[in-house]
Amino acid sequence: MSAINLKEKLSLFNDQWTPKIIGELNGQHVKLAKLQGEFVWHDHINEDELFYVIKGQLIIELRDNTITLNEGDLYIVPRGVEHKPIAHEEVHIMLFEPAVIKHTGDVQHEITKEKLDWI
Amino acid sequence: MSAINLKEKLSLFNDQWTPKIIGELNGQHVKLAKLQGEFVWHDHINEDELFYVIKGQLIIELRDNTITLNEGDLYIVPRGVEHKPIAHEEVHIMLFEPAVIKHTGDVQHEITKEKLDWI
Repeated sequence: MSAINLKEKLSLFNDQWTPKIIGELNGQHVKLAKLQGEFVWHDHINEDELFYVIKGQLIIELRDNTITLNEGDLYIVPRGVEHKPIAHEEVHIMLFEPAVIKHTGDVQHEITKEKLDWI
Repeated sequence: MSAINLKEKLSLFNDQWTPKIIGELNGQHVKLAKLQGEFVWHDHINEDELFYVIKGQLIIELRDNTITLNEGDLYIVPRGVEHKPIAHEEVHIMLFEPAVIKHTGDVQHEITKEKLDWI
């Protein structure tokens, strides 16, 4: 394995709402994603999920709060907490979460991805 | 919990080789650290360890390779692999690793920290 540069990896794909796996450690995946628009409300019953903004702005709506993440900000959505990511313009993010996590939790939606690719 | 800005958190401490915990998820800790100079050779038998460079350059010596990480680069040192971090000038990094990990593995050294603080 060699060093992984996030911007170089981000240049390898353009599809939105489709996280790409770039690393694995201790049963967790490190992923990169490009998001724009509104995702669906969902939660992950058994998994905490970390969002880190590399470029742009990500809004995470919670049922009782709204978290705004700018470049260099991170936020951990605890397991069982419903959330809805929103990006008014394209945002580039890194995710840390268990390898077994499901994309949209138990919610099935047209944007739900069953299997994610490594890049 | 609110958004965590990495640079803001980094401004809260100056001690080197003393990672600070900024988040916890799925039994893993997210940490920030400032490093300068040479660390000790060590490994972690049961834990993979992710290094992400926020600012500066980090060199990770392995017994059979040398990994150079610049800003925006990450590298995962697999469990059981001996490594020695080196920073010729101060480097700011984010770490992602199991909460149970020991600072210098089974190596005891004057720079070994038994307990890390949250910031």
